[in-house]
Amino acid sequence: MTSRLIDCLATTDALADIFSDASMLRAMLDFEAALARVEAQAGIIPPRAADIIAQAARTDDFDPLAIARAARQSATPSIPLVEALTRRVSTIDESSAAFVHWGATSQDVADSAMLVLLKRAHGVLKEDHVRLVQALRSLSDKHASTVMLGRTLLQPATPITFGLKAAGWYAAAERSWTSLHGAFDSAAVIQFGGASGTLAALGQDGPSVGRALAHELGLAPAAPWHTHRDRLANVVASSSLYTAALAKIARDVALMMQAEVGEAAESGGGSSTMTHKRNPSGCAVTLAAGVRMPGVVSALFAGMIQEHERSVGGWQAEWPLVADAVQTTGAALASIAQVIETLEVYPERMRANIDATNGIIFAERASILLRPSLGRATAQRLVEEAVKRSRTSGATLAEALKQSPEVARVLSPGQLEELMRPEAYLGAAEMIRKELLSTTSAHGLD
Amino acid sequence: MTSRLIDCLATTDALADIFSDASMLRAMLDFEAALARVEAQAGIIPPRAADIIAQAARTDDFDPLAIARAARQSATPSIPLVEALTRRVSTIDESSAAFVHWGATSQDVADSAMLVLLKRAHGVLKEDHVRLVQALRSLSDKHASTVMLGRTLLQPATPITFGLKAAGWYAAAERSWTSLHGAFDSAAVIQFGGASGTLAALGQDGPSVGRALAHELGLAPAAPWHTHRDRLANVVASSSLYTAALAKIARDVALMMQAEVGEAAESGGGSSTMTHKRNPSGCAVTLAAGVRMPGVVSALFAGMIQEHERSVGGWQAEWPLVADAVQTTGAALASIAQVIETLEVYPERMRANIDATNGIIFAERASILLRPSLGRATAQRLVEEAVKRSRTSGATLAEALKQSPEVARVLSPGQLEELMRPEAYLGAAEMIRKELLSTTSAHGLD
Amino acid sequence: MTSRLIDCLATTDALADIFSDASMLRAMLDFEAALARVEAQAGIIPPRAADIIAQAARTDDFDPLAIARAARQSATPSIPLVEALTRRVSTIDESSAAFVHWGATSQDVADSAMLVLLKRAHGVLKEDHVRLVQALRSLSDKHASTVMLGRTLLQPATPITFGLKAAGWYAAAERSWTSLHGAFDSAAVIQFGGASGTLAALGQDGPSVGRALAHELGLAPAAPWHTHRDRLANVVASSSLYTAALAKIARDVALMMQAEVGEAAESGGGSSTMTHKRNPSGCAVTLAAGVRMPGVVSALFAGMIQEHERSVGGWQAEWPLVADAVQTTGAALASIAQVIETLEVYPERMRANIDATNGIIFAERASILLRPSLGRATAQRLVEEAVKRSRTSGATLAEALKQSPEVARVLSPGQLEELMRPEAYLGAAEMIRKELLSTTSAHGLD
Amino acid sequence: MTSRLIDCLATTDALADIFSDASMLRAMLDFEAALARVEAQAGIIPPRAADIIAQAARTDDFDPLAIARAARQSATPSIPLVEALTRRVSTIDESSAAFVHWGATSQDVADSAMLVLLKRAHGVLKEDHVRLVQALRSLSDKHASTVMLGRTLLQPATPITFGLKAAGWYAAAERSWTSLHGAFDSAAVIQFGGASGTLAALGQDGPSVGRALAHELGLAPAAPWHTHRDRLANVVASSSLYTAALAKIARDVALMMQAEVGEAAESGGGSSTMTHKRNPSGCAVTLAAGVRMPGVVSALFAGMIQEHERSVGGWQAEWPLVADAVQTTGAALASIAQVIETLEVYPERMRANIDATNGIIFAERASILLRPSLGRATAQRLVEEAVKRSRTSGATLAEALKQSPEVARVLSPGQLEELMRPEAYLGAAEMIRKELLSTTSAHGLD
Repeated sequence: MTSRLIDCLATTDALADIFSDASMLRAMLDFEAALARVEAQAGIIPPRAADIIAQAARTDDFDPLAIARAARQSATPSIPLVEALTRRVSTIDESSAAFVHWGATSQDVADSAMLVLLKRAHGVLKEDHVRLVQALRSLSDKHASTVMLGRTLLQPATPITFGLKAAGWYAAAERSWTSLHGAFDSAAVIQFGGASGTLAALGQDGPSVGRALAHELGLAPAAPWHTHRDRLANVVASSSLYTAALAKIARDVALMMQAEVGEAAESGGGSSTMTHKRNPSGCAVTLAAGVRMPGVVSALFAGMIQEHERSVGGWQAEWPLVADAVQTTGAALASIAQVIETLEVYPERMRANIDATNGIIFAERASILLRPSLGRATAQRLVEEAVKRSRTSGATLAEALKQSPEVARVLSPGQLEELMRPEAYLGAAEMIRKELLSTTSAHGLD
Repeated sequence: MTSRLIDCLATTDALADIFSDASMLRAMLDFEAALARVEAQAGIIPPRAADIIAQAARTDDFDPLAIARAARQSATPSIPLVEALTRRVSTIDESSAAFVHWGATSQDVADSAMLVLLKRAHGVLKEDHVRLVQALRSLSDKHASTVMLGRTLLQPATPITFGLKAAGWYAAAERSWTSLHGAFDSAAVIQFGGASGTLAALGQDGPSVGRALAHELGLAPAAPWHTHRDRLANVVASSSLYTAALAKIARDVALMMQAEVGEAAESGGGSSTMTHKRNPSGCAVTLAAGVRMPGVVSALFAGMIQEHERSVGGWQAEWPLVADAVQTTGAALASIAQVIETLEVYPERMRANIDATNGIIFAERASILLRPSLGRATAQRLVEEAVKRSRTSGATLAEALKQSPEVARVLSPGQLEELMRPEAYLGAAEMIRKELLSTTSAHGLD
Repeated sequence: MTSRLIDCLATTDALADIFSDASMLRAMLDFEAALARVEAQAGIIPPRAADIIAQAARTDDFDPLAIARAARQSATPSIPLVEALTRRVSTIDESSAAFVHWGATSQDVADSAMLVLLKRAHGVLKEDHVRLVQALRSLSDKHASTVMLGRTLLQPATPITFGLKAAGWYAAAERSWTSLHGAFDSAAVIQFGGASGTLAALGQDGPSVGRALAHELGLAPAAPWHTHRDRLANVVASSSLYTAALAKIARDVALMMQAEVGEAAESGGGSSTMTHKRNPSGCAVTLAAGVRMPGVVSALFAGMIQEHERSVGGWQAEWPLVADAVQTTGAALASIAQVIETLEVYPERMRANIDATNGIIFAERASILLRPSLGRATAQRLVEEAVKRSRTSGATLAEALKQSPEVARVLSPGQLEELMRPEAYLGAAEMIRKELLSTTSAHGLD
Repeated sequence: MTSRLIDCLATTDALADIFSDASMLRAMLDFEAALARVEAQAGIIPPRAADIIAQAARTDDFDPLAIARAARQSATPSIPLVEALTRRVSTIDESSAAFVHWGATSQDVADSAMLVLLKRAHGVLKEDHVRLVQALRSLSDKHASTVMLGRTLLQPATPITFGLKAAGWYAAAERSWTSLHGAFDSAAVIQFGGASGTLAALGQDGPSVGRALAHELGLAPAAPWHTHRDRLANVVASSSLYTAALAKIARDVALMMQAEVGEAAESGGGSSTMTHKRNPSGCAVTLAAGVRMPGVVSALFAGMIQEHERSVGGWQAEWPLVADAVQTTGAALASIAQVIETLEVYPERMRANIDATNGIIFAERASILLRPSLGRATAQRLVEEAVKRSRTSGATLAEALKQSPEVARVLSPGQLEELMRPEAYLGAAEMIRKELLSTTSAHGLD
């Protein structure tokens, strides 16, 4: 089974597999086998012992539940796992059992195994990220000249294009991915320090064994970092940052999908009771991730103040947090990628929503046109009066302005008409859109 | 399987069972069966339909993985569950299928099922809490006159008794449990509101059906509270508060267990590499819980700002958080209860640590004895000089003070000797200890 | 000056005053004066010393900046404050200086002073809470039969009344206030334990001096609780819970105030550039508080794992968090109370938004009416087809249903017309509204 | 006044100045003056207006309290500030008032001003960081061969050098600073988008005006990013990460400074009542910062899900969080830098603490020496028996091992003696130390 009902919205199948018991056990056993192999190559343990350890580690019938239970006594799953592996090695060859886990400490295998899983998760996320940003870029290009209301504090503001909005989503996603991608890369290092981080049991060979081990596991070498968790914390923080960028998209889409706004719709899901409904379910999953991630970050950060060479409490808090952070990010990403790829956009409703404001969103523009001739105070007064007239009478702002002789002296009927054309008040929207689309995460699309 | 390797330190077997897929499915199916039953009793649906729904809901072969997967499309597991149940009812009796989930909404079943699980978890926690506070009370009584260093900012301060320290742990645990217990009780209410919280599909019968349903499920009745999550949030916040009280105990024990301090030891766990070690593993598990809980609270609280009648994002974030909070609390509690029940205490080391200060912890006392006769400034100067002499020469504070003629004029040799007796400088320790032990959580020990 | 520009949205004038330097100094000096007074009454220090300490503590020209700076060396403002007070006493009467701060520790004055401020803040919040709930209750009563769309996942659902929505806001505010009010009350206790929590310097008189001191300061007596912070943490957590209830109101109002929805408007604020705008500024301030509070809670909770008799780090983190929590809550409360008291409600827009759905929100109802006769599957199919026809043709759901002969056989034209009347599908809305309004916080309105 | 009593441990004088009312007002007024200047240069507003705006903005007598108060009505201080500036311009020259804040929006000035302050804060932090890492490097070099206990889960483990421990602190500080430094640099961009982020009021000139404005303010140009807060969030997250690295140092020092451990001492602060005490006050301030920061991050991250073109709530939450994050980081840094620069280290106590273990920390080593000849099980049994004998009798591990004939057959007396020499069991400590010291933050020390 790859996921739990209770966490169903907080992961994906692919990521739940990566952090499953089978996968975690496999990564830990692979560490032990690789350790034995490189130690045998370095002449530290007998080659035969390495072979037998590898053989014992190859099987998949270790009992995760028994290990999980025993872990509560030693505050780490590594100890019962190493014991189980040692027992298995003993049954094959008693003397080889001496060399299991040689020179390593429990945290070495736990941390390194987790980083192997994170590296794999990085690859899964990357695929979905590429899907997402490609869809965002297409959306932006397609709607480069689709005008819609800008909205500030949830109120109508001067117009934008939907292409610009999508480009903003794109650029934030790319910038955040660049951080996350870099964080994954920097964190993909071996943990190998032995009991106190000196690799004492390996004499002077420790660092070279560590480098060989890193190579075997597909990780980069690193000095032991048992109580220095910044690289891992960076992955979690960057995951949250990235998820926030995705959740912002989801919030915007969910708001645009309101019946009263009706500017876009995700394919969505239904209701258990209301046949007519089409819910922003993909947005909901993404927003739920956005809600949960900051707490995960704060928990992981709070655990970073770790004592001396290995901590009591801080480290033991990490596994569920790291796995949760990455899976939650993946759930958000898979959901929003699907939302964007299948998003329906309704330009005519966007236009209708502009029209429904009767042009009062152009009050700023009117004010700017009037200010140089009439001064700030007068311009503002005249525009405010016109806005009020428009609100009362249902006239457009242009019509209401025209009723003021002072305005009519400054602005021609043509200018007043032009005032109301959203296309004529987009400023540098297209230049900015292109600039935003030029944001690339070198690593994201290679 | 009741737990996952990655979460192994963050739950207990009993709680992992409660929040397992099987248990969650059971609670949801029980809701649907009970709903049909009370609606039949109220004459809203045919009795036969209720029977068949109950029959279909009784089996245990619903597929949690399929439901979990489908849940991602609708942003709730309720919808695929209701569909699966409806399909099953249809195969027994087509016409009864019309009455599955009658008048309820997806959140009704999801919330109510979670609260049934929480009520069960409450019972599990309560047993461990009683174990813990009984052990703390015994420990406090046993060590009512065991003197030890008070320690402030991790530095030696005036003496206390270990009985007082344990009574402080006890009182905080009891106060926090009272909050948590009350929070669980207040939250054990039905969720039943239908699509928009008006129970529209049930006409005027909604509230009475809701009360009957609550009774069936062992929950209290309540007006629909779809987007008002305070009761649930209170459970999570109180869990964190309670866990913090437990983690404070764990921190103290882990500090006392340092080899250099050596005043207490938990039975603890071993090391994967160092045979000699005895680790504060129980404290580590408890402290890890203490590290993680505040983040869970902040995430749940952040999700409380829920839109209108049902939210997009906030609600969907809750399940993993609530289940995590309760399981983490249970893990901390089970661990620290075991630590306290089996704690070894070393009064002689406590005494030795006092002696090792050479009496300079009584500097405050000396100062207080001297101040009335000599004034604050002079008293402070003389004591500081004596402390300095003691530090340099290794003499006790009493000996160092005796060397000052000004002190010798005020304090007799007997007074100076008495000055160094920790038992004579315990102030109201025993009165305070008894007051702390009189803290009772009416609900905790009934 | 009572507030800082950077925090301007995160406090109110009244609360900024309470947590100002002048107010904090006053509370600390009052503690020292009261301590001397009760110790003189108990015959522990000379009455004259108490008088002179009181006299010295009465002046307002202590230098907060100098104390703040010196505090960084000792990690508490109490030490430089006591030194400054002692110096001042010395200049009046050298011998009285010996008795300043007699038997107390720095944390005693710091904690007790903070609790005096919190008690005062409690009173300020209470006034605004009463304003808020009275306004909510009126709003609910006034709109008991104002129908509007229920909205779930930001999509139109079955209708509710605005009175019901306001009653939900009211009940959550009352429940949360009950928690917060109780938390403030429980926390309003003295801190008085001396160096290690035994009051050693006062011999057996400590507890009675503590009780007298509590009485003087308007606090309840309590055993020393230096490293047991649950009562204070409860205030902060309950503040956040309460703020979340307020922010939920703000979110709903801001959403209703969208131009495209237009169902309500707060008096609001303007824009620096757009004359036409009316922003939900009060909602923005309340929502900002809702965003920040969960982080404050998590920080305070993280600091609760405090070492031994007084902590290194956890305690020192608290002051800014506690003051921030209470001021932020007050800012949210003042803002939303003003929003609700001056809220404009537009029932005709509510009705128009229902009408704009063409009745498809009654699809659930249609389905329920059809299911008993036609079975779930057929009923659902027919309703879905009608919804689709309605969406395509612009016909109402009733009209679209009428086109189906199968439906026409079951539902009469009268029934179909009735189907579309929102008033006829409010279920138990009014009963639930009244139940919600019966939520009272005994303490809130006394 | 540059700081508040309540926040006294959470800032430094230099940083409190930067985020003071005067400084914030100055940054906002400088923005408005620079905007007018570049707009005049671009021929958008009259040069005379720019001069008069600059003249009006130059004075320092704007009233921050009045602006703070008014800000609560509009949910931003920008609006009352612009109004105040406009009034002032009007009194000089009525017609110039038309051109104040031309084309900008309130968030443009608020964000840009904050970033100017952040850039300044970056410089302040950098100086202290350089002090810190230089002191850490010296400490590490000085104690390259000072042996001490490694400690895992607060229990004695195999030996390390203090130089290695200090190098671990150094490397984490450098890595975290590199992140923080990069985050500050990336965030130092202009915010300039006008009402909806299109710079509509400036037509096609917006982007070039924006670039010129950025240049004037010492910021980098950027496309408008009103609701995309990742760069700013990165500063806050990196601040927390960096603070955690500092707090880890503080925790270690505070633990080493325990009387029973006695391996190091900071110069520290005193106690209000206990003359003898020397507290780890600097560590306390740093740890307090470490406690608070994760909550600040979670709050800021939670506010990132911002609606459309400008948000209601998320943005309004930021100012206090950003200012708090940077000041708290600075407080932690200033404190720990002072701790490290003046740290007293006691190598003889380090050695004594090793000796006090009676050599049982070398059990791992003994086991490793015995395993190849005797097999894992036998080796482990013999070592465990020896550890037990050592614990009971007070004999050293070597002596206890010697009593076993099986051990004596394998290990010579010389080997047994060597077994107990910590210097002989440091593994690759020195190689690792040098590797850690080679971590450089290119930007940190330039």
